[in-house]
Amino acid sequence: MTVIKDSVHDYIELEPTAEALLDTAPMQRLRYVRQLSTVQLVYPSANHTRFEHSLGVYHLASEAVDRLPIDDDLARRLRIAALVHDVGHGPFGHQTEAAIERHLGRHHDEIEWLLESTDLGRVLEDHGLDPEAVAATVDGRGPLGELVAGTLDVDRMDYLVRDAHHTGVPYGTIDHARLLYALEVVDGELALEEGNVATAESALIARTLMNATVYRHHVSRIAGAMLDRASERLLADGVVDPESFARLTDSDLLATLAEYERTAAFADRIRDRDLYKRAIWARRDAVPAAFRGLDYDRTRALEREIAEIAGVDPEAVILDSPGEPSSPESRARIVVDGELRRLEERSSLVAGLDACAREIWRLGVYAPESVLEPVGEAAATVLDLEDGANVRP
Amino acid sequence: MTVIKDSVHDYIELEPTAEALLDTAPMQRLRYVRQLSTVQLVYPSANHTRFEHSLGVYHLASEAVDRLPIDDDLARRLRIAALVHDVGHGPFGHQTEAAIERHLGRHHDEIEWLLESTDLGRVLEDHGLDPEAVAATVDGRGPLGELVAGTLDVDRMDYLVRDAHHTGVPYGTIDHARLLYALEVVDGELALEEGNVATAESALIARTLMNATVYRHHVSRIAGAMLDRASERLLADGVVDPESFARLTDSDLLATLAEYERTAAFADRIRDRDLYKRAIWARRDAVPAAFRGLDYDRTRALEREIAEIAGVDPEAVILDSPGEPSSPESRARIVVDGELRRLEERSSLVAGLDACAREIWRLGVYAPESVLEPVGEAAATVLDLEDGANVRP
Amino acid sequence: MTVIKDSVHDYIELEPTAEALLDTAPMQRLRYVRQLSTVQLVYPSANHTRFEHSLGVYHLASEAVDRLPIDDDLARRLRIAALVHDVGHGPFGHQTEAAIERHLGRHHDEIEWLLESTDLGRVLEDHGLDPEAVAATVDGRGPLGELVAGTLDVDRMDYLVRDAHHTGVPYGTIDHARLLYALEVVDGELALEEGNVATAESALIARTLMNATVYRHHVSRIAGAMLDRASERLLADGVVDPESFARLTDSDLLATLAEYERTAAFADRIRDRDLYKRAIWARRDAVPAAFRGLDYDRTRALEREIAEIAGVDPEAVILDSPGEPSSPESRARIVVDGELRRLEERSSLVAGLDACAREIWRLGVYAPESVLEPVGEAAATVLDLEDGANVRP
Amino acid sequence: MTVIKDSVHDYIELEPTAEALLDTAPMQRLRYVRQLSTVQLVYPSANHTRFEHSLGVYHLASEAVDRLPIDDDLARRLRIAALVHDVGHGPFGHQTEAAIERHLGRHHDEIEWLLESTDLGRVLEDHGLDPEAVAATVDGRGPLGELVAGTLDVDRMDYLVRDAHHTGVPYGTIDHARLLYALEVVDGELALEEGNVATAESALIARTLMNATVYRHHVSRIAGAMLDRASERLLADGVVDPESFARLTDSDLLATLAEYERTAAFADRIRDRDLYKRAIWARRDAVPAAFRGLDYDRTRALEREIAEIAGVDPEAVILDSPGEPSSPESRARIVVDGELRRLEERSSLVAGLDACAREIWRLGVYAPESVLEPVGEAAATVLDLEDGANVRP
Repeated sequence: MTVIKDSVHDYIELEPTAEALLDTAPMQRLRYVRQLSTVQLVYPSANHTRFEHSLGVYHLASEAVDRLPIDDDLARRLRIAALVHDVGHGPFGHQTEAAIERHLGRHHDEIEWLLESTDLGRVLEDHGLDPEAVAATVDGRGPLGELVAGTLDVDRMDYLVRDAHHTGVPYGTIDHARLLYALEVVDGELALEEGNVATAESALIARTLMNATVYRHHVSRIAGAMLDRASERLLADGVVDPESFARLTDSDLLATLAEYERTAAFADRIRDRDLYKRAIWARRDAVPAAFRGLDYDRTRALEREIAEIAGVDPEAVILDSPGEPSSPESRARIVVDGELRRLEERSSLVAGLDACAREIWRLGVYAPESVLEPVGEAAATVLDLEDGANVRP
Repeated sequence: MTVIKDSVHDYIELEPTAEALLDTAPMQRLRYVRQLSTVQLVYPSANHTRFEHSLGVYHLASEAVDRLPIDDDLARRLRIAALVHDVGHGPFGHQTEAAIERHLGRHHDEIEWLLESTDLGRVLEDHGLDPEAVAATVDGRGPLGELVAGTLDVDRMDYLVRDAHHTGVPYGTIDHARLLYALEVVDGELALEEGNVATAESALIARTLMNATVYRHHVSRIAGAMLDRASERLLADGVVDPESFARLTDSDLLATLAEYERTAAFADRIRDRDLYKRAIWARRDAVPAAFRGLDYDRTRALEREIAEIAGVDPEAVILDSPGEPSSPESRARIVVDGELRRLEERSSLVAGLDACAREIWRLGVYAPESVLEPVGEAAATVLDLEDGANVRP
Repeated sequence: MTVIKDSVHDYIELEPTAEALLDTAPMQRLRYVRQLSTVQLVYPSANHTRFEHSLGVYHLASEAVDRLPIDDDLARRLRIAALVHDVGHGPFGHQTEAAIERHLGRHHDEIEWLLESTDLGRVLEDHGLDPEAVAATVDGRGPLGELVAGTLDVDRMDYLVRDAHHTGVPYGTIDHARLLYALEVVDGELALEEGNVATAESALIARTLMNATVYRHHVSRIAGAMLDRASERLLADGVVDPESFARLTDSDLLATLAEYERTAAFADRIRDRDLYKRAIWARRDAVPAAFRGLDYDRTRALEREIAEIAGVDPEAVILDSPGEPSSPESRARIVVDGELRRLEERSSLVAGLDACAREIWRLGVYAPESVLEPVGEAAATVLDLEDGANVRP
Repeated sequence: MTVIKDSVHDYIELEPTAEALLDTAPMQRLRYVRQLSTVQLVYPSANHTRFEHSLGVYHLASEAVDRLPIDDDLARRLRIAALVHDVGHGPFGHQTEAAIERHLGRHHDEIEWLLESTDLGRVLEDHGLDPEAVAATVDGRGPLGELVAGTLDVDRMDYLVRDAHHTGVPYGTIDHARLLYALEVVDGELALEEGNVATAESALIARTLMNATVYRHHVSRIAGAMLDRASERLLADGVVDPESFARLTDSDLLATLAEYERTAAFADRIRDRDLYKRAIWARRDAVPAAFRGLDYDRTRALEREIAEIAGVDPEAVILDSPGEPSSPESRARIVVDGELRRLEERSSLVAGLDACAREIWRLGVYAPESVLEPVGEAAATVLDLEDGANVRP
């Protein structure tokens, strides 16, 4: 039994299949993809990677399946799916997710292509696991797939605790050990035992607070939006093909951006932390519904319109209008007074937390510091913002 | 400069006045009053005392006043009031508070009597402090008294973090350093700077979750109710006079109870953790409003009625119907978009947290295990409980 | 399966035998015996008890036996012995150990008498365990008894980590998880696997540093010496019989001391932290060998001699000359380059740590502040101390 | 006052000069240089960077100078030197230090060239600081320069605690707060106050244990030796000029190695963690003195000799024979019984720790797995190793 020391869970025991998988290139690559991508530009200690997170999720899955009444084969598939669950992430994780989806039509949870094109599939087969079943589990499908990706998944339990440890922000310290103790299988699906409404709420609260202070921090969002813009250029101009793009590491992407004339400026700005600033930063209730959660084409069209009015280069305007916040964990199943319910049915907090998520929603328009004012004015016109909508000048 | 090592805040620096106060008997006594009284019967590590908590509150007050634009005299008064703020607590802290109030007509925040009857007042005067002004500050009155007892007090910041450290329950880990950084004085009163709604909410959330899992745990409530009953007997029978009672330590009280015939059984039960059990444990919506938040006389009358119907000794029935939950921190002042507001006006979470507090409210009727059934039935009749009100048999 | 939350090991799972044992009075009593007795007078957060420590030792024993190739009966006996290993401690633990040994001729690891005179033995038998075998294991005898009391015991692993957590002193943070992983059985006895010299050294280092900063702190030693003196008086005068004495809690002892005229002054001084001071505090090399590690009678005779010369009451002089330091863990068995060795044979540090332990050794003579000078001078004469022996006036 | 959240020291307050320096490219570059270089290949959580470490050292320097009786100008110079002290590190820090010294004749503590060739010097001047004085302080020269680089420097205090936090190895948890409290200036130089021998020893112990388990782990040493070999090739072949080399980030270096034919194989092996293995791993007493601590030319000559005898490509043999261990902190000045001494004069542990450092010293010969045996045999002959010298086959 090999053991690895982890800063969050202390020792993690690895079964042979896990060891063999760790030795593959796609898993080793995760050492060079930061878990929180551009958040390190705000929280300098947040340099932990998807590699150590993957080990953590594997560990929690192991602890969970040890206590669940399931057979060894399923237990093993769940553990292994937990280990490889992030292998499909592109460089900078979520920050290039949209660009990859546009060009490959594929979400990071769909890893079938990787099983075929790398050693991963072969190693799984060598160890008696069905690659397709593992891939389905990574995507949350199949028996108890929700343990890996779903309303009660160990992915979230690990990242909340790990992100708290590495940023220094204390809000992610959920009681993951109790969540694991409370898991049971009811009608073939996961649920939390009686007496755990507060435990379940705490995970939802943790994510809400981490969103507000860490995950949705404007500096990280700006850097992410700049990466998306530059990545799109790279892919649209055919500098890198999408399959190769999806396998870059964080630094590979920065290096590739730096080498291409039309994206070099973005690379320099990110590397030197000389980022665009907020021309607009508007609360949800000040933004017309038509301009919330915009798709890619509409976003680009609006950016061009704003740039034209402001009299600036279209590259100098980035519009960032996220979709409505969602909280899958509020649909977690939980036993209350002997009956199986959804958390949102029994929790007095879920509605408040949803409101809170809408409260911290912001539409951003970013631009170089030198053109902030004209861009802000043009954007306010184009987006039909109310007076006073802009909470940050 | 003397420094003391603390398990939560590391080194705490003490000014000479603080050192001299620590050497008085009333402060040394706090070494023998557990911060969480009977909670150690549920969380065995929760043996921290009001002494170390007092040091912690002093430390946080020192950090706060160093950053506020106030004069040295006020700063010193606030620090010293923070240090002595718990000196008025009776044995087992909040668990004997009601009994002491009934017999002395005095809350633990009113410490004038201690300043006169012990060394405390003299030491304060010797160090150039006005005992009355310090006492007022402990009670939350006077300039910035709210730093010691109020909507943004350092008492709460310390106990949430400290109780988390010693119980092992992670929910109390608020970002107290950020709360201290965010404090400012607006129109002579404390407020939180712009950008801290989530910081303020986190403290409220922490208390709500700690209530649900720690402070309101039924085992601790039962032990507390038994202590109240036994203390009342001691005081009513004149075994101890109220002034002396208020100065006992936890173990003094247990020893005194053990020596008096009519209370010895309670002392044995608490010491051996052989507690009463729940005959009734009813949710708020199943309890008629008339039976929620009962005063002492009404409680005793109902207990007697239940005992009579059940055919048991009146000492065998304890009714515990707490008042409505309150959350002073929701009225904390905070700057939002340049205007001074109450947290509850700007937070989407406060209403949810209030609902949550009502959700975990429970009326309890406790009795020895041997008579649980008749007491439960009698209580359901007397309290006019709905069918199914009793969530724990 | 019942689980208990612990501040050090998080959740601890209890088997039914453990639960039943915890419900006995001798185990519940440990809630009122502080793990570090008088150390809280120096480190105010050090209020953790032998109860939570017992749970921690049980937990580590459980983790250890799960990995060792032993049968279920032995595993269970080891776990249960770990749980009850401290049940024989008197009030204030080690601080009254000598007095109890003088009057009962019994060390705290000998618990046979408790198994007979309390519920403990019956509960063990009811659960199919042989009380004598458990008692032998507590004393380090029988198969793998050294896991509970010996060179590689889990008692030490728990207390080093726990004392660090509660004092705030960081030196006790050994890698106990790695020590547990490294345990193996060689020729029927425990040993550490290849590659763990540094792991074993770290535990020895931790204890040496904790001795220097925590366990042997002079304030705690003075309070302990005062307790020993007062306890001896109580026992010699027959105020309490030795069997009853050994079952008191910390506060019981203080209360008993307070009630007896000849010991009341000691009780007041300890409670108010108004302790004797150091009249002499001498390094080992300045103390003639004949005066190091004195037995009881010789100590009392010397105290009387000092008191007479100084012209003070004999109660005003306490001589505290500890024995030579020992380090059982340096004899731990460890595999190095394929051979079984003692740690001291392979570690370059053991000799240095032994020297270090001798370095921090001190002979103390304590007295009330008002008579420090005459007592110090008399003691220097009587003990034939070198000039300059006294490092603290 | 800007504050930054750090995972180790919580909030770090930045003065304007520090903020301006952080905005320069040389400081931002440190975000992409891992503090522990290749250690992450063993401890996956060890991804913290020299950027966050620099903030931590700045923070500790600030705390230290606040308590020292020095003027504001010196205090500021010390703080700022602490902030920029690592700016001269090449990619992978210590792992390319030797290669840079061979080609530039410059140690990473000599940063004058950077002050001239980047914005750093200008920013220092703009804020009224003398770049040369700052550079001298970084190198440990000038008034109290030892606070930044010396026997009692804050660099070490930060990295021990930080490396422990991020690897999960508990041995680095020194009591840095107490070290800072204990600092005083005696005759113009730093010393520790009376009563701190154990405090000083603990830092030395921590480094010894961290060496044994983390810093000198063979996997990290092998990766480092491979990087040195590949870097030398890059520089010798003129692929990168030395000045540019010294400014690469970790990933820049890997990318550069990957692009050059003669080093691409090394880059692949490091990225996929497919490292050379140990053909020889010999204890100090089994290695003739002539082969310990070899210089570069001698090392290369011996490697070629081994390769020739083994019949393998010279690139397939790496010889790694480190110099004698040293411990600057053992010369720290400390007041003992009123006199100023060196720690090594008063500590019983220093000699043991030195022996311990020699004990964990190893000479390594590394080669691809397929040629381990012939290389091992040839190396044993060439290096005249005793039979049984090789502790790991």
